[in-house]
Amino acid sequence: MPGNRLITFTTDFGTSDHYVGTMKGVIYNINPAARVVDISNAVQSYDVLDGALAIAQSYHYFPVETVHIVIVDPGVGTTRRAIIADTGRYLFIAPDNGVLSLVYEREERLTVRHITAEHYFLQPVSRTFHGRDIFAAVAGWISRGDVELGKFGEIITDYARFAAPRPKPEDDKHLKGVVIKVDKFGNLITNITPKDMPQLFEEQPPPFRIQVGKSEVTTMRPAYADGKPGEVFGILGSMGYLEIASNRGAASRTVGADKGAEVSVLIES
Amino acid sequence: MPGNRLITFTTDFGTSDHYVGTMKGVIYNINPAARVVDISNAVQSYDVLDGALAIAQSYHYFPVETVHIVIVDPGVGTTRRAIIADTGRYLFIAPDNGVLSLVYEREERLTVRHITAEHYFLQPVSRTFHGRDIFAAVAGWISRGDVELGKFGEIITDYARFAAPRPKPEDDKHLKGVVIKVDKFGNLITNITPKDMPQLFEEQPPPFRIQVGKSEVTTMRPAYADGKPGEVFGILGSMGYLEIASNRGAASRTVGADKGAEVSVLIES
Amino acid sequence: MPGNRLITFTTDFGTSDHYVGTMKGVIYNINPAARVVDISNAVQSYDVLDGALAIAQSYHYFPVETVHIVIVDPGVGTTRRAIIADTGRYLFIAPDNGVLSLVYEREERLTVRHITAEHYFLQPVSRTFHGRDIFAAVAGWISRGDVELGKFGEIITDYARFAAPRPKPEDDKHLKGVVIKVDKFGNLITNITPKDMPQLFEEQPPPFRIQVGKSEVTTMRPAYADGKPGEVFGILGSMGYLEIASNRGAASRTVGADKGAEVSVLIES
Repeated sequence: MPGNRLITFTTDFGTSDHYVGTMKGVIYNINPAARVVDISNAVQSYDVLDGALAIAQSYHYFPVETVHIVIVDPGVGTTRRAIIADTGRYLFIAPDNGVLSLVYEREERLTVRHITAEHYFLQPVSRTFHGRDIFAAVAGWISRGDVELGKFGEIITDYARFAAPRPKPEDDKHLKGVVIKVDKFGNLITNITPKDMPQLFEEQPPPFRIQVGKSEVTTMRPAYADGKPGEVFGILGSMGYLEIASNRGAASRTVGADKGAEVSVLIES
Repeated sequence: MPGNRLITFTTDFGTSDHYVGTMKGVIYNINPAARVVDISNAVQSYDVLDGALAIAQSYHYFPVETVHIVIVDPGVGTTRRAIIADTGRYLFIAPDNGVLSLVYEREERLTVRHITAEHYFLQPVSRTFHGRDIFAAVAGWISRGDVELGKFGEIITDYARFAAPRPKPEDDKHLKGVVIKVDKFGNLITNITPKDMPQLFEEQPPPFRIQVGKSEVTTMRPAYADGKPGEVFGILGSMGYLEIASNRGAASRTVGADKGAEVSVLIES
Repeated sequence: MPGNRLITFTTDFGTSDHYVGTMKGVIYNINPAARVVDISNAVQSYDVLDGALAIAQSYHYFPVETVHIVIVDPGVGTTRRAIIADTGRYLFIAPDNGVLSLVYEREERLTVRHITAEHYFLQPVSRTFHGRDIFAAVAGWISRGDVELGKFGEIITDYARFAAPRPKPEDDKHLKGVVIKVDKFGNLITNITPKDMPQLFEEQPPPFRIQVGKSEVTTMRPAYADGKPGEVFGILGSMGYLEIASNRGAASRTVGADKGAEVSVLIES
């Protein structure tokens, strides 16, 4: 389907303003055959890690050749670079501030270009809305499929990346993690995976205690609905992380914890 | 338009996470020609009746052959079934928990299938996000139009359905209903229809009193703008129900009532 | 691309109800090849000026021939007219209540029609949801490209328009403006442009004081990230207005001001 590559949006622009709609206008104006899909425009304002998590969870479910726009860009209008990252299967257009770090972690092949070809930008380029003037415009041109990537700028290797916060093992049986996200249902999504503490995710886990907020969690459940009324439990969530959840309730409220809260796991046997 | 059936989303997944976007990625990956439209992803968490109302209000405005995904699914990962309901004009993909009850009420022909054909699912199937691994994947395949419905599973007749809460007549002139939804404008949408109490909806209704929250409503208005400043009034809303509203204001705030509040109607002559 | 004109939505309908989705259903039912894009459905309820600002900021980024639906319609169901405004490049479908005023300001050529051709409406027409029964239906027909605009109704010249609130110069060096919008990031967007007070936007502005809420602003910054930690500053925003902002923070919170707040600018030299 030439000229018709899918474009996705992962931004902190929200949907209460015209920002996202205007960007789509720019894209359709450059490529009338474009198709645009929102992953999320509700990334927390200025929170590069939150944006990195959202795109890392979602991008690989899209068709090969999809162009992912990822914008959490507190440095807009400064000397921070705009980049195109090419994994061979997907393209990413983003500010070079590490928002693609978790994509980089998952991908072996990687070519990153610094976008410098200003004749593809909307002119004049504002200092406050590169989403419209640079990122959407470049995405529109790329989605047409008739401009070689090399035309947008040179390959760079010193692109910004950060390491996502990893849980810290205190010893074999004790791990300290953190809540990296609270979802719409109030599930507390931690940064702890089965690799970090396999025992916890066994079918019959040994006795354990998870301390988070004002709660102590001592059960793992395979499905949300397996939780007893009012119970807060651990569960392997769809993002591959330990979640603290409750059945038909918001664990975040019951537990009194939010993003950034410490999660301490102790295996007791 | 073969391979191009419209797909709609009615879910409680919200738009603050990647969930809805990821599901769309799954669909486009299976059917690159798919077209996806959101009805609402703001169904109240776990509230099957709220989801049932949203889809029942909207589905029949879409083109024939539209595939409606409806997910409010507190039982995800348990033995509750996934189903395809076929009305001859529309298809629905949903958990079998009654979320299609109000669709069933409106439709005479109805074929419901239990989705069991796991080779159409994303593998491995998580226990917490069937929206991605089952519902979106099946919708993608169905929208292609080249898989017979029978391939997804057998016909069942014992599918779950509940009766929506109906207003209770106390006598000819007295009815007790309930607020089933508060919309974005603060309109209180009740479960009372013209069939339940025709007098109220006459051009010149007899004297009446509607008790709701801390307010007593004694006027019906044909249009929102016919309300006097500050007045709370009744109106026949676009969903076919009695609404309690106010002109350029949020009746829910004035009245001090929310979803679930009792609405008592008394005809006084 | 005949039969395939882009349709945009700018409404106060929100996304928590089925309203926007149902309107899209109506459109696709009339024109299966339609393509629909949201500019924003989060215009403040009943706030015609807020809607006028949103569409004026966005419409001209879309491809020529785009059909823009703009609905903020507290007068729905009364005698207020429904109109089609044609600028030669874009079409607008809206209630005739001034919501297109800022579009009219930007456009020289302008033909406005009163929509009266009821056979293009959904029947019966409700008194509370013309978005579905009139505006979406007409947009669907127009997007097909095979109905002449004259078929929808006669040209009128007495359409409603209002003047947007302009800043008031007290004298050469003193101006009083107003916050017209607070965006998702908490930026306070004022109605003051470089034309109103050019000195403020010079590369080296003279000493000045901007009074807004409980803050006094004495610096202009070219980019958000140029602000010092905790500093509230002025900046030329992407909408062409003076914004009061802070770096990685919500100025609205720091300043304690909201939409409607007075903004007083005093040049001190």
